[in-house]
Amino acid sequence: MNYRIEKDTMGEVRVPQDSYWGAQTERSRNNFKIGPSASMPDKIIEGFAYLKKAAAYTNFDAGLITIIKRDAIATVCDEILEGKLKDQFPLVIWQTGSGTQSNMNVNEVIANRAHVLAGHKIGEGTPTLLANDDVNKSQSSNDTFPTAMHIAAYKTIIEHTLPALSQLKNTLKDKSATFKNVVKIGRTHLMDATPITLGQELSGYAAQLEYGIKALENTLPHLSELALGGTAVGTGLNTPKGYAINVANYIAKFTQLPFITAPNKFEALAAHDAIVESHGALKQIAVSLNKIANDIRLLASGPRSGIGEIHIPENEPGSSIMPGKVNPTQCEALTMVAAQVMGNDVAISIGGMQGHYELNVFKPLMASNFLESASLLADACISFDIHCAKGIEPNYKRIAELVSNSLMLVTALNTKIGYYKAAEIAQTAHKNGTSLKEEAVRLGYVTEQEFEDWVKPESMVGTIE
Amino acid sequence: MNYRIEKDTMGEVRVPQDSYWGAQTERSRNNFKIGPSASMPDKIIEGFAYLKKAAAYTNFDAGLITIIKRDAIATVCDEILEGKLKDQFPLVIWQTGSGTQSNMNVNEVIANRAHVLAGHKIGEGTPTLLANDDVNKSQSSNDTFPTAMHIAAYKTIIEHTLPALSQLKNTLKDKSATFKNVVKIGRTHLMDATPITLGQELSGYAAQLEYGIKALENTLPHLSELALGGTAVGTGLNTPKGYAINVANYIAKFTQLPFITAPNKFEALAAHDAIVESHGALKQIAVSLNKIANDIRLLASGPRSGIGEIHIPENEPGSSIMPGKVNPTQCEALTMVAAQVMGNDVAISIGGMQGHYELNVFKPLMASNFLESASLLADACISFDIHCAKGIEPNYKRIAELVSNSLMLVTALNTKIGYYKAAEIAQTAHKNGTSLKEEAVRLGYVTEQEFEDWVKPESMVGTIE
Amino acid sequence: MNYRIEKDTMGEVRVPQDSYWGAQTERSRNNFKIGPSASMPDKIIEGFAYLKKAAAYTNFDAGLITIIKRDAIATVCDEILEGKLKDQFPLVIWQTGSGTQSNMNVNEVIANRAHVLAGHKIGEGTPTLLANDDVNKSQSSNDTFPTAMHIAAYKTIIEHTLPALSQLKNTLKDKSATFKNVVKIGRTHLMDATPITLGQELSGYAAQLEYGIKALENTLPHLSELALGGTAVGTGLNTPKGYAINVANYIAKFTQLPFITAPNKFEALAAHDAIVESHGALKQIAVSLNKIANDIRLLASGPRSGIGEIHIPENEPGSSIMPGKVNPTQCEALTMVAAQVMGNDVAISIGGMQGHYELNVFKPLMASNFLESASLLADACISFDIHCAKGIEPNYKRIAELVSNSLMLVTALNTKIGYYKAAEIAQTAHKNGTSLKEEAVRLGYVTEQEFEDWVKPESMVGTIE
Amino acid sequence: MNYRIEKDTMGEVRVPQDSYWGAQTERSRNNFKIGPSASMPDKIIEGFAYLKKAAAYTNFDAGLITIIKRDAIATVCDEILEGKLKDQFPLVIWQTGSGTQSNMNVNEVIANRAHVLAGHKIGEGTPTLLANDDVNKSQSSNDTFPTAMHIAAYKTIIEHTLPALSQLKNTLKDKSATFKNVVKIGRTHLMDATPITLGQELSGYAAQLEYGIKALENTLPHLSELALGGTAVGTGLNTPKGYAINVANYIAKFTQLPFITAPNKFEALAAHDAIVESHGALKQIAVSLNKIANDIRLLASGPRSGIGEIHIPENEPGSSIMPGKVNPTQCEALTMVAAQVMGNDVAISIGGMQGHYELNVFKPLMASNFLESASLLADACISFDIHCAKGIEPNYKRIAELVSNSLMLVTALNTKIGYYKAAEIAQTAHKNGTSLKEEAVRLGYVTEQEFEDWVKPESMVGTIE
Repeated sequence: MNYRIEKDTMGEVRVPQDSYWGAQTERSRNNFKIGPSASMPDKIIEGFAYLKKAAAYTNFDAGLITIIKRDAIATVCDEILEGKLKDQFPLVIWQTGSGTQSNMNVNEVIANRAHVLAGHKIGEGTPTLLANDDVNKSQSSNDTFPTAMHIAAYKTIIEHTLPALSQLKNTLKDKSATFKNVVKIGRTHLMDATPITLGQELSGYAAQLEYGIKALENTLPHLSELALGGTAVGTGLNTPKGYAINVANYIAKFTQLPFITAPNKFEALAAHDAIVESHGALKQIAVSLNKIANDIRLLASGPRSGIGEIHIPENEPGSSIMPGKVNPTQCEALTMVAAQVMGNDVAISIGGMQGHYELNVFKPLMASNFLESASLLADACISFDIHCAKGIEPNYKRIAELVSNSLMLVTALNTKIGYYKAAEIAQTAHKNGTSLKEEAVRLGYVTEQEFEDWVKPESMVGTIE
Repeated sequence: MNYRIEKDTMGEVRVPQDSYWGAQTERSRNNFKIGPSASMPDKIIEGFAYLKKAAAYTNFDAGLITIIKRDAIATVCDEILEGKLKDQFPLVIWQTGSGTQSNMNVNEVIANRAHVLAGHKIGEGTPTLLANDDVNKSQSSNDTFPTAMHIAAYKTIIEHTLPALSQLKNTLKDKSATFKNVVKIGRTHLMDATPITLGQELSGYAAQLEYGIKALENTLPHLSELALGGTAVGTGLNTPKGYAINVANYIAKFTQLPFITAPNKFEALAAHDAIVESHGALKQIAVSLNKIANDIRLLASGPRSGIGEIHIPENEPGSSIMPGKVNPTQCEALTMVAAQVMGNDVAISIGGMQGHYELNVFKPLMASNFLESASLLADACISFDIHCAKGIEPNYKRIAELVSNSLMLVTALNTKIGYYKAAEIAQTAHKNGTSLKEEAVRLGYVTEQEFEDWVKPESMVGTIE
Repeated sequence: MNYRIEKDTMGEVRVPQDSYWGAQTERSRNNFKIGPSASMPDKIIEGFAYLKKAAAYTNFDAGLITIIKRDAIATVCDEILEGKLKDQFPLVIWQTGSGTQSNMNVNEVIANRAHVLAGHKIGEGTPTLLANDDVNKSQSSNDTFPTAMHIAAYKTIIEHTLPALSQLKNTLKDKSATFKNVVKIGRTHLMDATPITLGQELSGYAAQLEYGIKALENTLPHLSELALGGTAVGTGLNTPKGYAINVANYIAKFTQLPFITAPNKFEALAAHDAIVESHGALKQIAVSLNKIANDIRLLASGPRSGIGEIHIPENEPGSSIMPGKVNPTQCEALTMVAAQVMGNDVAISIGGMQGHYELNVFKPLMASNFLESASLLADACISFDIHCAKGIEPNYKRIAELVSNSLMLVTALNTKIGYYKAAEIAQTAHKNGTSLKEEAVRLGYVTEQEFEDWVKPESMVGTIE
Repeated sequence: MNYRIEKDTMGEVRVPQDSYWGAQTERSRNNFKIGPSASMPDKIIEGFAYLKKAAAYTNFDAGLITIIKRDAIATVCDEILEGKLKDQFPLVIWQTGSGTQSNMNVNEVIANRAHVLAGHKIGEGTPTLLANDDVNKSQSSNDTFPTAMHIAAYKTIIEHTLPALSQLKNTLKDKSATFKNVVKIGRTHLMDATPITLGQELSGYAAQLEYGIKALENTLPHLSELALGGTAVGTGLNTPKGYAINVANYIAKFTQLPFITAPNKFEALAAHDAIVESHGALKQIAVSLNKIANDIRLLASGPRSGIGEIHIPENEPGSSIMPGKVNPTQCEALTMVAAQVMGNDVAISIGGMQGHYELNVFKPLMASNFLESASLLADACISFDIHCAKGIEPNYKRIAELVSNSLMLVTALNTKIGYYKAAEIAQTAHKNGTSLKEEAVRLGYVTEQEFEDWVKPESMVGTIE
């Protein structure tokens, strides 16, 4: 590979000939060979693109840079947002904990790319933009990285996570309505209990997701607050008057999302409780999804020796010979994602608890875990929705069989023949492995007709709206 | 010890002669010798007392029990709430996962105690109340235990956690205001950075707690929803019309807290996402407190070889011989509590994710961890506030020394003598271990007067409100 | 309450009249009102009793204290070990992170109790022992507390956890042998698979516990290393020659356990990786137990609408009316304990990762979580063993029914009639809801006799030892 | 893109024209669009390559396949191991929890690639190998995936993690020896304590890593046990006699690692406690590394307003203007990795606890988290070693200054002038902000010479080996 020589305050660095990145990025590449390269999430780079453009506009408005520089910066930012420069961000998550080098990576790429767009070769002629003095003007890694984190996190939640959760919730709600009269056995402690409808059961899952969505939405205001304008330690040193508010306005405008400036910049640099808070809601959702997916695979278990009350779609061969072996693979993927999100929550919390003084230095860790959780949950919900939830169908025959066999139905006779006779019927049926009706009639406590009139599972499931 | 013989559906049980509890409680005592006895939290028992009283009122209103029974139940519930029967609840957390036996413990104690209050001996004469048919009427363990959980959790947060957090937050805010002009060195990456005021630093901590308080408050609506009325599987089987709404109203009235009936009882029995959600906020607060306490002990470190920028109260001898060794013991207690809460969050999440079908059977685990976290955070914040935060004082001499020695102040000269000369001054001072002023004057770039006029840390800390 | 006045280096303190504890304990009581009082585990106090006695013997051997003082100290230590002074240790977990005040609590109690045993009143006459100069001689909180932690942890594992695990493992092994020929349906993805024996299934659980026991035993050598002799920072300042080795020998002798002195005292004070390591094994065991208990409750589910392949003991009424509703309450307790241990693991790890310089100050947190996990696992395994595992019985009828209905048995015909015909049989049976035999004969591929000769689930389960 | 049509038991699938993968892989690609594509770790695919080759050899030895087929399979496996077919494994972690589809992906690639190597076009002519009947012979996803997991995990630990840990441990040990006489202030509770040498301090870190290495090695025997031979449910159905032992021998031979067959295949399929166990050791190591890296950055903090006792290498510009601002970026990367590993431990434990019956279906989750932790720790230790640990140098001047200023040195005078006079000296010095020597002489308790003779920090640090 060919190289060019770049200089920074520490001396010379060999940088790949045609890369837009420069000395500081290259130092980081060399110093942090930890994990796969380019692991810093794309969404963080996008967040940077939004904020660099917004900073350029704000700096121009404040008279700090020319309109030419503003537009040069903005043009490259737009290219980044269009995904054109993806191979120019080679750095890893496991770098400086402030993400300084990713900030510099963005600064360098914008400066060099603008220079090339202006018709020059990298490193030749008067620089079109200076990475530090122009692109990074009125900024510091310490306030840009958390700003990029919030932009990326907020956007992902709004654009991916919440829509996916709603989609799945709506499917569950629809299924709940469709199956509202399908009376089945209820189960507590995994043991047979009084009847419930399949619709009621599914309504509980939908309700869980509704609460999860609300909980996640509750965390958005904190996440909408941006650190930008705090610069190095939160005091806003080297920013023009009004900068923090104005730059947040531009970010809001460019992203079409309601970002505002954080009222306390010291908190915004030194702690990332907004990330902890919002991921707490993602973790709650993971907890819910684990319960839901686990129930569904239990309900679908069989085909002969399981519960078998529902059918789920067969998406791939389950067994080369055995028909009906429909493995609950979507449930498995979803519960694995849930476990990952629960682990990520611990990683994020540990990162959040350990800042020192004016700066939390677990930013890339927190950002990458957050974005992974938010994206995986979104993807997994969509996948689960399309390939599993939408296709849930009752196994009417099995459901009817199990509910009609249930000894718990005897409770319906309590008010007719008294508790003791009812219990006797149940015990006899249990001992003999027979049905309640059989024993109720044989014991002479009710006629067959009475049994059928009185023991109606559908009247034991409460009011169904 | 003397025993009486009690019977239940499984046969005879020997119960301690004078205990108010009965056969089912005794079975549980014998079957679950796991951990210290009576570990089921008092607050859960209190929660039961509220709901049993409320159920009695609602059942009376519905014509299901007499006013005599209602008042008998209510009288014992009031005794429980007054703390009079504390030794009557011997069961442990590690029992049936629905908490069934603690529900029965409460039922039995109410029935037997009412019988004694009515002038009878336990087990003699016509029972004043039947544990199942009267005290537990229109209820199931499956809806009472989660109701007791929510009452206990909500009350603890409102009465203990939130006030304690506010108290500490207010102290930090007051301190922040008091020290708003104390200019000190800022630190990022644990390294010297541009100045900040002590007030600004403390304002970040106060802001963290404010966000934590808001986050915790956001979880209260979900926690205010009560499962009662769902009975065994959520269908409300065996409850009179309007029961769920009415019993929630009574609970709200008796607790003076805005409890309502859960709109979806299936979710309320089968999942405890409200507990997961609310504890997520407690965990966020633990994350914040860890950062805060850790910073404070670092700032107070010394007396000679540490940072030493603040003094914290000396509450106990730190060293028998060395003066000034003020160990940050309150910080240590607080950070240990934070670690516990973070562990509890995992325990709760794991409990929450594992329900099956109509019933989550990790209820006592979830309840006890939640209540421990909420109480420990409250106690630790009060302790930290009184014995540490309130007594924080700047070490003005040390703060001034460090800030005036800082090489970072050189940035103030950039606009006066240019970046390169400024950097040269800093480098020379760094190399020689001298002060900026010394080198600035020696190099002939500024006069002493100019240096003093231009290099003012207090003008580098932004606008202080 | 009556008080006496005590003095320490900070001044006067009012101490309850008859308490053996003194000023420093009382200060801690007042300064740390966090959680229930006296929460410092008894086992830690016992650990201190062993080490204080050992230190007294070692100090006497080194000529540092008289035989009278040695024996005075030893006598009170023996009383503590006999459980006689339980109410004299009122301090909480949430105190100084080095446990300094619990060390002082023990020192004070030994000194005052010895004085009383010598016929004096507390605070009167020449002190029999000085808490600091005699009882704490050649020691520091910084090396005594971790020593007490290791003694307590090691003893609990040896005396409780390992025996309980072995007991449960042996039961599972015995059951595995007893049921080695009970052929049942296997299940993968919760779906019917090829046959397995109940004994094989149970052997997997026994194997899990065997690995867990080995893993726990692997951690004992690290846990057997004692910090004592490191004193304040690990250098052993103020200890006589040979002290560290000798005091460990005495501790080994008194506890009858193979304790040795830690080869690196700096590690032993500044980090508690031995606790992290050993609790890691407890966490692994919790993971195993969760799987086992969850499987067992699924296998026992029913009585009509579940899997129902095994019976577990009925220990308490499951339903007042429904026979056969045997709730898997021991499984529920055990899985709740597992969740707690998994949470405790996070708390311990967070405590372990955060030491500073020469001292980890999360000692009480780490100790209490460790001891809780080790004890809860022990208790829960015993409870589960006695009240559940020992009583597991196959439901032979159900097992036979399910295995004979299984479509997976068709694989036995592959080698006889070819894959395609075999699959056709299975598909037809699946479609018609009939048995394999029915369809195999109807399709004319085999005779009834051939089917019976060829399709033998018991020949599909491999070699059973 | 061009496609070819493939068939499986469910029907036709369009597969990219030239891909070696087939229908089942393609179905999985379409059904599991969760997270970035091809996220299944390369090391798992390598593990499969080893085991497929070993199975081919074992099947040949048992007379089940021809030597031509054996060698065809082996040739492609070798290509995979050489990294030649990396783009042929497009599947994600978040698929079927048994990893079935990655097993099929490998089978399909081997079959099609062998066909091409044999001079045919994919899909044309008599198949050289059948994916199921030849490549997967005597295997099941259920025993291959866990075998691939163990091979990948074991190899990574042996080849990367352990060497990296040893490298860092050795550096710390060397540094410890080099600086064994550099006497510095000790610190407990972050407060000044008695002296210690820098070598002693570093020896504690080295000891931590030594314990971690031992703990990790302790887990290797369990990890060396392979599931292969258990087939679908652990019974070994459809395997030839001796298969399990023989195939493990081949794997051992090909990998040059001591793999053996798992004694209990039921455990090996249904649980992955070996992964939980081994990752527990990785987590312990993360805990240690967090402590070490955190101490090092605190010791290096400054340059003027921190502790400043050591210098660490300057790898990138810390501040554009301030000299000496050497950000501890390697510490930051390492502590972020530590946090990630702690999160991964929770994800793995949650995966491990949730298996059902004969199969754990969190395999890809467990594998990917394990491999990430093992690799990140390895990479981060190497990076930290090269770019930080190796360059640690004492700041002798600062160290001497701090230790000579320390008030704790007064303890050296106890035996000379008595405790009370010594304490008086310390208190006066503390009050006046002066040195011990100054006050000791001024108070007339010692001469300057006596002070220098008696107060020698180097004699307070114990025996240094």
